[in-house]
Amino acid sequence: MEMLELPQQQQQQRHHRIKVNLTNSRSSLASFGCDLKETFLPDDPFRDLKHQSGCGAACSLVKYFVPMLEWAPRYTLGKFRSDLLAGITIATLAIPQGISYARLANLPPVVGLYVSFVPPLIYGIFGSSMNLAVGNVAAVSLLLSSMIGSEVSASESPDLYMYLFFTAAFFTGVFEVALGIFRLGILVDFLSRSTITGFMGGTAIIVIMQQLKGVLGFKHFTTKTDVVSVLHFVFSHTSEWRWESVLVGVCFIGFLFLCKYVKAKVPRLFWVPAIAPLLVVVLGGVFAYLVHGEEHGIHIVGPLKKGLNPISITHLKFQSKYLSVLLKAGLVSGFLALSEGIAVGRSLAMLKNEQIDGNKEMIAFGMMNIVGSWFSCYLTTGPFSKSAVNFDAGCKTAMSNVIMSICMMLVLLFLAPLFEYTPLVSLAAIITVAMIGLIEYEKAHHLFKVDKFDFVICMAAFFGVIFFNMIIGLMVSVGLSVIRALLYVARPNTCKLGNIAGTDMFRDIEQYPDCVGIPNMLILKMSSPVYYANASYSRERILRWIEKEESIANKNGEELHYLILDMGGVTTIDNTGIGMLIEVYRNLERRHIRVVLANPRLQVADKLVLAKYIEMVGEEWVFLSVNEAVSACHFSLQESMTIAP
Amino acid sequence: MEMLELPQQQQQQRHHRIKVNLTNSRSSLASFGCDLKETFLPDDPFRDLKHQSGCGAACSLVKYFVPMLEWAPRYTLGKFRSDLLAGITIATLAIPQGISYARLANLPPVVGLYVSFVPPLIYGIFGSSMNLAVGNVAAVSLLLSSMIGSEVSASESPDLYMYLFFTAAFFTGVFEVALGIFRLGILVDFLSRSTITGFMGGTAIIVIMQQLKGVLGFKHFTTKTDVVSVLHFVFSHTSEWRWESVLVGVCFIGFLFLCKYVKAKVPRLFWVPAIAPLLVVVLGGVFAYLVHGEEHGIHIVGPLKKGLNPISITHLKFQSKYLSVLLKAGLVSGFLALSEGIAVGRSLAMLKNEQIDGNKEMIAFGMMNIVGSWFSCYLTTGPFSKSAVNFDAGCKTAMSNVIMSICMMLVLLFLAPLFEYTPLVSLAAIITVAMIGLIEYEKAHHLFKVDKFDFVICMAAFFGVIFFNMIIGLMVSVGLSVIRALLYVARPNTCKLGNIAGTDMFRDIEQYPDCVGIPNMLILKMSSPVYYANASYSRERILRWIEKEESIANKNGEELHYLILDMGGVTTIDNTGIGMLIEVYRNLERRHIRVVLANPRLQVADKLVLAKYIEMVGEEWVFLSVNEAVSACHFSLQESMTIAP
Repeated sequence: MEMLELPQQQQQQRHHRIKVNLTNSRSSLASFGCDLKETFLPDDPFRDLKHQSGCGAACSLVKYFVPMLEWAPRYTLGKFRSDLLAGITIATLAIPQGISYARLANLPPVVGLYVSFVPPLIYGIFGSSMNLAVGNVAAVSLLLSSMIGSEVSASESPDLYMYLFFTAAFFTGVFEVALGIFRLGILVDFLSRSTITGFMGGTAIIVIMQQLKGVLGFKHFTTKTDVVSVLHFVFSHTSEWRWESVLVGVCFIGFLFLCKYVKAKVPRLFWVPAIAPLLVVVLGGVFAYLVHGEEHGIHIVGPLKKGLNPISITHLKFQSKYLSVLLKAGLVSGFLALSEGIAVGRSLAMLKNEQIDGNKEMIAFGMMNIVGSWFSCYLTTGPFSKSAVNFDAGCKTAMSNVIMSICMMLVLLFLAPLFEYTPLVSLAAIITVAMIGLIEYEKAHHLFKVDKFDFVICMAAFFGVIFFNMIIGLMVSVGLSVIRALLYVARPNTCKLGNIAGTDMFRDIEQYPDCVGIPNMLILKMSSPVYYANASYSRERILRWIEKEESIANKNGEELHYLILDMGGVTTIDNTGIGMLIEVYRNLERRHIRVVLANPRLQVADKLVLAKYIEMVGEEWVFLSVNEAVSACHFSLQESMTIAP
Repeated sequence: MEMLELPQQQQQQRHHRIKVNLTNSRSSLASFGCDLKETFLPDDPFRDLKHQSGCGAACSLVKYFVPMLEWAPRYTLGKFRSDLLAGITIATLAIPQGISYARLANLPPVVGLYVSFVPPLIYGIFGSSMNLAVGNVAAVSLLLSSMIGSEVSASESPDLYMYLFFTAAFFTGVFEVALGIFRLGILVDFLSRSTITGFMGGTAIIVIMQQLKGVLGFKHFTTKTDVVSVLHFVFSHTSEWRWESVLVGVCFIGFLFLCKYVKAKVPRLFWVPAIAPLLVVVLGGVFAYLVHGEEHGIHIVGPLKKGLNPISITHLKFQSKYLSVLLKAGLVSGFLALSEGIAVGRSLAMLKNEQIDGNKEMIAFGMMNIVGSWFSCYLTTGPFSKSAVNFDAGCKTAMSNVIMSICMMLVLLFLAPLFEYTPLVSLAAIITVAMIGLIEYEKAHHLFKVDKFDFVICMAAFFGVIFFNMIIGLMVSVGLSVIRALLYVARPNTCKLGNIAGTDMFRDIEQYPDCVGIPNMLILKMSSPVYYANASYSRERILRWIEKEESIANKNGEELHYLILDMGGVTTIDNTGIGMLIEVYRNLERRHIRVVLANPRLQVADKLVLAKYIEMVGEEWVFLSVNEAVSACHFSLQESMTIAP
């Protein structure tokens, strides 16, 4: 039999129904521009500029890049009081954390204090987050030390080693600013939560492993970071273990956990765990001083010289021999720093129902790293622990960072030398406790429950980090995530729709088993995108549906006359995709099955028209809804029956 | 005000409506397995095995891997007649093409004849396409010569050079079989039509450039392939041009175009362009013999020794020094060969309404290359020109390849020496004309019209090939395609829905401007996937919609109470995506806006339940359609009004 045509009266009748809008009002160029905008300015940062005069626009443009001008004018004494408290609290945390992480990077301890002086000032000006606290982080410190350490030994040429850190920070800064200006926040989006969870967990483990040096009182320690070699080293040098150190370490760890517990019980005592690390440092220092710890295997930090950050801009090393490793280090650590910083900023902002702009944050981080690198600071970002404390302490604006920076200045000018008695073991205890907080079992378990693939991605990062190194862990995990995204594009799911009895709704028959299929018709819901990567798959899938339906129909002595494609879910289509649709049409034409389209979206309809596909199908066979399509098919079917008996 | 609760009677009432099915009947493992199947066995090759007994299943399994067993039993004399004609036609084409492409690869001309003897036999057994004709192709020949030529010079050590070609073919074969067995046809899908169009066009250009050697009668020629250096070479050696050669070349090219034209006018004369190349070779040969062409700058092919393919299995080179380049060559050329072969097979099958199985084809190609490499054949695939001729000649089964192979055997045994007088210029003419057919302006123009990005991808391949080299062109183009696919995943579009007056349909207000928004509600259509790569984007996009709506509502003195998310188009969601939804929910909760879900798909609903998101939203706020959601919201809104006046 021939393919069924839509009878006259039906055609007339259908002139009354709402026509499907197939013509895109915007020019292809305009929509292309709009796509670009959606891609790189998703948050439409300049949306309020449009309604302003030139001067006003200029002024709010400056405001956009210097958020300080936003909040400074509206700054009140009340806010200052909260910021002051918060600032002092995080300063007390900044001292021990700074020193410990600096040691983790094999840098002179005082550098860890420097990073909490200059960068916070810069962030105070450019930062758009009101809750973030600036500082160095364990993961990146360890990463940098392993990367730069592979090039230059920290023990042989400590100065060069340190300068390379500053240079790497400079590169990171430039990289971050560039990302921000070119609106490439999108890149950071490709670090999924699963990846970050796994990566953080793994890093926590290897950082804790490094702390065995402090806790067990080793004088020298392996430079490797992977669990196996560290454990092997530790247990092959049991003779060097010092029980005094272990004892003190365990006490401190216990104490720190106790403080956390207190806060968990009585939230308003948030400051207890916040200042606990400083206490541990001070007590430890006093103790070490009194009992002459050095003689009993309780090693101390050693000389910390007074004075503010020395200027290091002249020491930045751009020689080609270091360039490649520095660029690599800058890039990777920059990614990590950004992802942690932005994630932290976002989640805290969410709690206060504020918005923060990822790209703006990137510029702020970048500025603070660039300027930092000129004043003996290595990579800084928004560490979670510190920012959380800042938030709990009730900070109101970025002013709390400025306060911290001022406190730090005082410390550097007057108190620094006091900290030279700080026992390494207390630093180890502080890091260990901080890191244990980063291992999120329940989150991993949640991933496992909800999405197996996410769990695999997470575990890839975790085991990659603990058994190989941080970069491998990260790369493998990101690689898997990308493959998954591509697989999604390559294998979109199509499902058969049936009518829900008594309604005009059509739903997936797998989901609603009591849906009834319509005789002589096959209704398929396509899903987005119809793309080069899935074109041949989709074609074969559709033809397989047809075959199946035909065989069923033939059993019931029926024939399949219509394929109704519900395009409602297809948001984009490319040329190969359209080619696929055309092939399907041609193929079905030979089997006398008519293709009918329901509810094509604008962007798609537009392309289908341009590619003459709509012309091919016939505009009268494009409907606004599956329901209309079905009734039209019914009608023409009956017509043909009555005509040809 | 507080968030609106769904009043009692409404709750009762709603027990009558169809419940949304949120519970996935399949276990997560089962669905995971099903996803795997969809990914790697999309065509479900063994679907008819299920209904068979053990023996029957085994037999049809063998049939599956050896398609010959499918058609051989049903082979008739009538079919044989058609295949015989087709076979002879493609054989006449195979001789000149084989020789020319072999020369393009700097291989002894006779190798070009070998490739049409052994491989077709193998393909006859394993090939699932009834239209494909086997042979060597220009693009890959040139690619291989440039890759292997960089390792070993063809002129200095011709034998080694040749053996490396065989070895590369062996690797390609193994690679193809592996892809086929592990069902990785999906990889080939990532070569989009746009890429292939651009790549083919570019290759055609550089191949034609190579022909300038033959046409202008150069004795020596540059080894570079990019347009710039070839042209530079040609015009810096004008002294070596030979007018006789040019004259003959122009005549031949004119003749070949004439033949194409004849066919275009009178389709039943399909054989005219098919045998034209052989004519050109024969005429050219006779002419060259009579006028002693060599003396007048009309260079000839030179000695062609009689005899069948010598066995080369013992000559395959697996030394480590060549391994890397050979593996690379095998891989890249394999990809190209597959993509061309499978594309050709598919498009021809489409015309006859047959199905071919990409993965099965891969195995067939692989087998023929492996065996070929043992008998002095280099890479073979299904070239478009030859296959098209085969199709036009009315081939019925793969038998036509066997016929060709037999003809070839006769040629090799008896006629080979005759071809040594073949002038290079006639080969050049043949290639040139064949290649010009591969440059598809109108297709590129079509791409430009329909999809700018596809056009960019196409042009990247084109210019990459002509100005740099084939690999760069291919890589850049594929890279762009992948980035595009990722960008799609990273920036899904969300649109606001409005009600089409007088219906219960809700459509994109941008597409249907006369849709009316519902007061106090914002209806957003999400699109798939909701993924880690777009989570933060989607969150900010949704919140921006909310802000916009609220500002509008406030102008009209209204309030926004509901956000209705139409999940109908979301086919998959991952953990980060769910996290995003939760954050949105929390954020809106603070603004007293209730989130309502409409029509979640099975796979998605399943995850949302597991992640406790449905619990959070409240199951009574999940509806089967936007319409139901809206009416329920209306109802509870009125209730609250009447309650609190």
